[in-house]
Amino acid sequence: MSGRVVCFGELLLRLGAPGRQRLLQSPLLEAHVGGAEANVAVSLARLGHEAAMVSVVPDNPLGEAACGELRRHGVDTRAVSTAPGRMGLYFLETGAIQRPSRVLYDRAGSAFAIAGTRPYDWPALLAGAAWLHLSGVTPALGERGAEAAIVAARAARDAGVRVCFDGNFRSSLWRESNCEPAPILYTLMSLADLAFADHRDIAVVLGTKAAGFADAEDTAAAARLAFETFPNLQRLACTHREQRDVDHHRLSASLFHRDGSVLRATPRDLSGIVDRIGAGDAFAAGLLHALLSGMSDEHGLAFALAAASLKHSVPGDFNLVDLQDVNDLIAGGGFHVRR
Amino acid sequence: MSGRVVCFGELLLRLGAPGRQRLLQSPLLEAHVGGAEANVAVSLARLGHEAAMVSVVPDNPLGEAACGELRRHGVDTRAVSTAPGRMGLYFLETGAIQRPSRVLYDRAGSAFAIAGTRPYDWPALLAGAAWLHLSGVTPALGERGAEAAIVAARAARDAGVRVCFDGNFRSSLWRESNCEPAPILYTLMSLADLAFADHRDIAVVLGTKAAGFADAEDTAAAARLAFETFPNLQRLACTHREQRDVDHHRLSASLFHRDGSVLRATPRDLSGIVDRIGAGDAFAAGLLHALLSGMSDEHGLAFALAAASLKHSVPGDFNLVDLQDVNDLIAGGGFHVRR
Amino acid sequence: MSGRVVCFGELLLRLGAPGRQRLLQSPLLEAHVGGAEANVAVSLARLGHEAAMVSVVPDNPLGEAACGELRRHGVDTRAVSTAPGRMGLYFLETGAIQRPSRVLYDRAGSAFAIAGTRPYDWPALLAGAAWLHLSGVTPALGERGAEAAIVAARAARDAGVRVCFDGNFRSSLWRESNCEPAPILYTLMSLADLAFADHRDIAVVLGTKAAGFADAEDTAAAARLAFETFPNLQRLACTHREQRDVDHHRLSASLFHRDGSVLRATPRDLSGIVDRIGAGDAFAAGLLHALLSGMSDEHGLAFALAAASLKHSVPGDFNLVDLQDVNDLIAGGGFHVRR
Amino acid sequence: MSGRVVCFGELLLRLGAPGRQRLLQSPLLEAHVGGAEANVAVSLARLGHEAAMVSVVPDNPLGEAACGELRRHGVDTRAVSTAPGRMGLYFLETGAIQRPSRVLYDRAGSAFAIAGTRPYDWPALLAGAAWLHLSGVTPALGERGAEAAIVAARAARDAGVRVCFDGNFRSSLWRESNCEPAPILYTLMSLADLAFADHRDIAVVLGTKAAGFADAEDTAAAARLAFETFPNLQRLACTHREQRDVDHHRLSASLFHRDGSVLRATPRDLSGIVDRIGAGDAFAAGLLHALLSGMSDEHGLAFALAAASLKHSVPGDFNLVDLQDVNDLIAGGGFHVRR
Amino acid sequence: MSGRVVCFGELLLRLGAPGRQRLLQSPLLEAHVGGAEANVAVSLARLGHEAAMVSVVPDNPLGEAACGELRRHGVDTRAVSTAPGRMGLYFLETGAIQRPSRVLYDRAGSAFAIAGTRPYDWPALLAGAAWLHLSGVTPALGERGAEAAIVAARAARDAGVRVCFDGNFRSSLWRESNCEPAPILYTLMSLADLAFADHRDIAVVLGTKAAGFADAEDTAAAARLAFETFPNLQRLACTHREQRDVDHHRLSASLFHRDGSVLRATPRDLSGIVDRIGAGDAFAAGLLHALLSGMSDEHGLAFALAAASLKHSVPGDFNLVDLQDVNDLIAGGGFHVRR
Amino acid sequence: MSGRVVCFGELLLRLGAPGRQRLLQSPLLEAHVGGAEANVAVSLARLGHEAAMVSVVPDNPLGEAACGELRRHGVDTRAVSTAPGRMGLYFLETGAIQRPSRVLYDRAGSAFAIAGTRPYDWPALLAGAAWLHLSGVTPALGERGAEAAIVAARAARDAGVRVCFDGNFRSSLWRESNCEPAPILYTLMSLADLAFADHRDIAVVLGTKAAGFADAEDTAAAARLAFETFPNLQRLACTHREQRDVDHHRLSASLFHRDGSVLRATPRDLSGIVDRIGAGDAFAAGLLHALLSGMSDEHGLAFALAAASLKHSVPGDFNLVDLQDVNDLIAGGGFHVRR
Repeated sequence: MSGRVVCFGELLLRLGAPGRQRLLQSPLLEAHVGGAEANVAVSLARLGHEAAMVSVVPDNPLGEAACGELRRHGVDTRAVSTAPGRMGLYFLETGAIQRPSRVLYDRAGSAFAIAGTRPYDWPALLAGAAWLHLSGVTPALGERGAEAAIVAARAARDAGVRVCFDGNFRSSLWRESNCEPAPILYTLMSLADLAFADHRDIAVVLGTKAAGFADAEDTAAAARLAFETFPNLQRLACTHREQRDVDHHRLSASLFHRDGSVLRATPRDLSGIVDRIGAGDAFAAGLLHALLSGMSDEHGLAFALAAASLKHSVPGDFNLVDLQDVNDLIAGGGFHVRR
Repeated sequence: MSGRVVCFGELLLRLGAPGRQRLLQSPLLEAHVGGAEANVAVSLARLGHEAAMVSVVPDNPLGEAACGELRRHGVDTRAVSTAPGRMGLYFLETGAIQRPSRVLYDRAGSAFAIAGTRPYDWPALLAGAAWLHLSGVTPALGERGAEAAIVAARAARDAGVRVCFDGNFRSSLWRESNCEPAPILYTLMSLADLAFADHRDIAVVLGTKAAGFADAEDTAAAARLAFETFPNLQRLACTHREQRDVDHHRLSASLFHRDGSVLRATPRDLSGIVDRIGAGDAFAAGLLHALLSGMSDEHGLAFALAAASLKHSVPGDFNLVDLQDVNDLIAGGGFHVRR
Repeated sequence: MSGRVVCFGELLLRLGAPGRQRLLQSPLLEAHVGGAEANVAVSLARLGHEAAMVSVVPDNPLGEAACGELRRHGVDTRAVSTAPGRMGLYFLETGAIQRPSRVLYDRAGSAFAIAGTRPYDWPALLAGAAWLHLSGVTPALGERGAEAAIVAARAARDAGVRVCFDGNFRSSLWRESNCEPAPILYTLMSLADLAFADHRDIAVVLGTKAAGFADAEDTAAAARLAFETFPNLQRLACTHREQRDVDHHRLSASLFHRDGSVLRATPRDLSGIVDRIGAGDAFAAGLLHALLSGMSDEHGLAFALAAASLKHSVPGDFNLVDLQDVNDLIAGGGFHVRR
Repeated sequence: MSGRVVCFGELLLRLGAPGRQRLLQSPLLEAHVGGAEANVAVSLARLGHEAAMVSVVPDNPLGEAACGELRRHGVDTRAVSTAPGRMGLYFLETGAIQRPSRVLYDRAGSAFAIAGTRPYDWPALLAGAAWLHLSGVTPALGERGAEAAIVAARAARDAGVRVCFDGNFRSSLWRESNCEPAPILYTLMSLADLAFADHRDIAVVLGTKAAGFADAEDTAAAARLAFETFPNLQRLACTHREQRDVDHHRLSASLFHRDGSVLRATPRDLSGIVDRIGAGDAFAAGLLHALLSGMSDEHGLAFALAAASLKHSVPGDFNLVDLQDVNDLIAGGGFHVRR
Repeated sequence: MSGRVVCFGELLLRLGAPGRQRLLQSPLLEAHVGGAEANVAVSLARLGHEAAMVSVVPDNPLGEAACGELRRHGVDTRAVSTAPGRMGLYFLETGAIQRPSRVLYDRAGSAFAIAGTRPYDWPALLAGAAWLHLSGVTPALGERGAEAAIVAARAARDAGVRVCFDGNFRSSLWRESNCEPAPILYTLMSLADLAFADHRDIAVVLGTKAAGFADAEDTAAAARLAFETFPNLQRLACTHREQRDVDHHRLSASLFHRDGSVLRATPRDLSGIVDRIGAGDAFAAGLLHALLSGMSDEHGLAFALAAASLKHSVPGDFNLVDLQDVNDLIAGGGFHVRR
Repeated sequence: MSGRVVCFGELLLRLGAPGRQRLLQSPLLEAHVGGAEANVAVSLARLGHEAAMVSVVPDNPLGEAACGELRRHGVDTRAVSTAPGRMGLYFLETGAIQRPSRVLYDRAGSAFAIAGTRPYDWPALLAGAAWLHLSGVTPALGERGAEAAIVAARAARDAGVRVCFDGNFRSSLWRESNCEPAPILYTLMSLADLAFADHRDIAVVLGTKAAGFADAEDTAAAARLAFETFPNLQRLACTHREQRDVDHHRLSASLFHRDGSVLRATPRDLSGIVDRIGAGDAFAAGLLHALLSGMSDEHGLAFALAAASLKHSVPGDFNLVDLQDVNDLIAGGGFHVRR
């Protein structure tokens, strides 16, 4: 398949309590590498695309390990440089039944967050790329992150590289960042060809204009307003999640076009969830795959939802599935043991 | 919050097969500390109360470890003394689907069971306490346990400390004890201000008078008879459990008053159960918390049921949740990841 | 109970990814011993029967470990000999939700597969036996396996030992074997008194005659055709599995007789499945137990389905339950903790 | 090889802290099956002999698991019966450097200890046996154990079965037993053809007569006195252990004959010890193997010491080595990787 | 024993690679709680003293877990408060043979480091205390840490509480702190009654005056100079470590007095080291125990060295031994298994 | 550093028993990726060189995992193709004290072994390479392996790429291969610029001419004969290992030149060995690094020995160290904790 995808964002080390234990209930932590944009890069590499990560890590064994995990799954890490600062961490406690999962971010002062725009030579990094993928997590890390994200997205537009932006709104990070999210996200959305955002994300970006978008029913209206506001935007997609309890969700997805047309994928019922972290990233990667592969949007949306659904069955942040896994699910191959 | 709670009972070491393995299927056992009354103490300490354990353990690393776990969760263990005898153990095999969990008690000859009444200076231990909590497990350990429980409960009444008694009827223990449960439990119930008991427990205590209470529908009638029989009793509560299979229950709860009024909490559907051991103790602790905190009984019952429901999501005997976890669930905060 | 059962087939070492991880996602593999016929032998030994394994393993620690596991569960392994070749392996990745489990066979060149008929002195091995159990896996290993299976089954008929044959059709093995399944399976079915086969298995055996048996509804017709074709066949049984997703199945079972009568067991709803590998073998062993114990066929079918259902709750290939576990489930003893 | 060996004693479940952790430092315990006489039985079975265990276990999963482990290693467990009581346990904390290992016995009230002499039909159990092996642990369990051991040893002498007695003096058990060790051990020694005992064991048995045997240098004199006292005794053997620290020992062994001749094996330097529990039993089994195999005593002593030395490299109580492992070590095959 | 000890310093969470793996070689980390002063507090509590921790942790599950671990081992944590900031972490890779262990500090921005002096009401915290223990790690965290340490030490002197100061010089921390160590450490030494420091520590504190103290031989001279410089100082102690390789050290210890007298403990040879982190803290706690218990200095030094030696055999930062363990080692009880 | 190194050989999956357990003593296996030439590739990549692997794996998750591990450590795997056949495995049991480690090869029929010469376009693969590294393991896999190795080495000479050949003589593989090692190894040695071989390897290659080289003292004479026989050979190196026991070795190394000069590195004493597998490959990679970096041969030999020594401290087949680790050891930086 054609078209290199450049993913820009922070690499994180996830430290999770085993099984359904409370954090540090027993003295073991399971380490996984993650990060919203890295998750997309891994998905794309596993689906057969050329995916490159642009990031900054500290020059220590944690930074090395994170890069090693990306390489293991086929991501090009030559554009991950090292700089002073610490490794961004997050602690995860996986919930169960009626006890929600909890993420404890410990990423302040990370090498990536404090690096600003300096480490990146965007014209070189984007040469030959089809897409730049970034997310709303980077600007939420603070002023430097915001600047770095905007510079990257502008460089992509300048270079004729399409921009994919995943809103990924995390209020706790923005609170800590002491930045106002709306203007920054507005700028990033205005540079995007493809955006992942639901009615809440759009409401954050557009402020009072979108304040009325109170629930999922309003996503179509929010999308219309987004297309009006952002002339570069060609497609807007999102998932919707009904949660019966912590382990049992119903996942659906919508894809909106500039022309007002709306596609809705058949929802998937997911019970006995193993790990839902990274499902949104798996969805984004699935849709990027669909666009890179020239699928119809209808098939593409179904592919993206199937990919996101499979993510719920895989431990860790990465969606460790391949094309055949997703296509089998779409084809309704059933759930018998594959021998 | 005001009011120290003194919990009296045996500390146990639980040795459980990992995951859903049969006991000793593989050569690993997971150790947890438990015991009905210790579970209540831990819950109360985590909910912010002053909770003290009164017990006896052997003077060896197992006894020390049990005390250490209680302290870790904030329970005052200064009144846990050491004495000859062994540590009470139980082996646990967690079932799945249609294979029930199994408990293999190995507590005969424990330091607690053979200690009798000697180690406890009740007037000192109860000084300044609001409640004494004990359960039907202690008298089921044999004559000395029965005597120790009755002496403790009497000392509490004498000292103006309210008595909370959880029936916790375990027929296999009573069988081994060579004691007749009815008269002993009768005495303990007669000393209680608050009791946890369902129609079966009451039928055991009251014998022929209550023999007709055959199913859960009869609990209200059984409760009325209990209030008639035991003039000290102010409240009687119980949970009710419909089991679709080993991993999927529907849990409800009722609270009965002397005046005949009955409260029923909205049932909770619990699927994908992680560990149900200790849920009854979590319920008892929840209701004690409600009383100590001056909640309305209606809110208190909802709180206790929510606490008991959360216990099903936590591995081990202790309900490792805090006030906010329970309040979030009651408030319907939903099941999304908390970041 | 009376009647030794001789099980003939390959012992396998299963190497499985822990939990719901993808294969080698983390660097640990869990080892279990299995093999369709060995699974039956272990079930029978645990249900109180004399069960002997006839097989060949390499003379190395893997072969020794496999025999050791059988002995541990009470199977007589004196008729497992050693020969050149390797240990048959399979790698297992347990799926979840909508991601199916995967088996990667690595059994080519195994000591058993290349041993042919030479190691077995059937008259001696079958002396005093009530049943010989074998399955369609052995002939699927190639020409030598096919010959070995047929020789064994013929020896049993000659010795007046009843033959139980489980179709266990594995198309990937047959493909690798370069053998045509139909004539070989036809011969084996013609020697069997009891067969486990559904409409697909029968269609494979009978070829065009049975080509119309497209779905589970046709199993009764397929069974009728099988009884017509195979005069030795007295009973034919199979399970049927509706799969809501990877973790939630509805399992039913049918038992067909020569006289055209059909028994259907009440289906069992199995959610939160732990490990479904070996459930078919657990069913076969359950029905053999029923026949050996003189149960009515109706009770026997219920017993076999209950045994197969319990297997879904036990990690590994072996159905580590005993008579009381199965009888408790049939008796509807409920799902509370057994203390 | 010829000659069945019957081993009589208690089966124990060892629960050990992982690695070099203190007991319950982390909440995991590793389970192993052991027991002095069972260790001998497993060694002998692995060395190619027919070994049968005579014992009593409780009728629960712990007792079953213990028997299963013996069978796994080839021991005949048909003479292990079930009886009321609990499973004998011991907790193990493996030390390191200058912190000694600790064993916490928890075997009071075990099914074996309270069974007495009733479960054993010795004439039947000893039919065709070459040796009965028992140890000083059984009488140390109390009066019933002492009686059971003496009855067994007498039955062996009556049946012309040679008696092998391993002193295995455990003062903490004797203290708890409220029995006087000297007369009981005296009786057992008087029935033995082969005994394992060092100067301390002999001093305990012979009391004042042997009080002067203060250190290892006196073992030969002690042995002479033992031969004088016990006319049935043909051989007496012991190991001697110089301990540089917890992980580094120098192990030697001596074999004494009635005729006063003494053999000393070349000591072995053992550093980086993995698990020394059961080394004495491995030595005893090694010498029994030598006698059963008709080795010269010199070779036999070297074999026994090599076997005991290898035990230090194997986790658990059982000496999981085979003939070739021991012979390789004796032959000086070196320490390179065997490929 | 009499005399409460107040320990002031940061609580840390240690995340270590399992066994001898490189950091993140496999995706598991073992969590331990540590911190130089906390290690002393735990040692003292386990040796029977009243030990209280004064510290600040973040209000999250990591902070809670750290306090829980201290309570588990008997330390009073009521004076550990919560404040904004993160939990101090360190990553540990345990080396082997000729590959040194590595510590990767990740403690910048910790709640403790940024808390400054505000959270501590020293007069109240020190009421009734015999000793305040602090170390050179706290001032190495930066200006606020330095100020907090000095304020604490001054408050102790003002309150007549003796000050114990462990130099614990960590150059990498001081480098990051942008502070000059000499003047700060000078002030702290000048307030101490008891100090732990070797010739290098003293050289850092005294600068040019002590520049000539190049190796361990000079420690006595360095000590003399320290006593001259710091009139409050009564005793100065240090360990000395000869390292044959990563796993094999020879540990000795010296104790210097104002009067110029010097005690040297008999060195201990430690091979097969399990975990050396915290050995210095174990030594400090051992000497404090000796002083609190009124031992002779000679016995006290031997006790402290024995305690430090035992630490090398215990995984984690805490010296999980008790009085009897240390006394047994001093008494030369040998290395046999304690039963 | 300049110069790409192409490594040609089989990728293997190692399945090892945990700790010092016997194989399958407990039901867990630890997976590592290895293979003599892959080990060299990983070492070189970690030391900063461009290293590419040329190999063939099956198209399944095991093959993918092996490639992923190489990529993780920076090896270029684009020249690893897939082909029919299985994954080469080996089972490892790590010995202890006087029990040697055991390797059980299970690599017959592997995709690599049966691939022959077809998958490799050597001119393209070698373009721009400085060295081709291969070993005596590949020809030991059988006729096709031998042909593939010789074709590769010839292609390298033709392309002016230097050839590094590691003898790696494994008699058990050669026995299974039904090939005569001498002529094949002779051909490969004749193509090599650098060879790793000791007196035994040379004796195998040169047959009767070298039969007298009976022990390590003869290596220099053997080397002289090798230089006479093979005019392309510039350097010949080997390690020598004195084994005190399984865990304690003394490792030395020699480097021989065409001109007859001999260098001997100072031996290193390695006690408490963690994992010695791959130490020879670490040595080879160290020397290649030295040559690629333009070190003096003396420094290079010391570097290679230090690298090989460090390997003994790292679990798995790969030498997970970097330049600084090796240089620190050579510089005598000592064994204190690096903070």
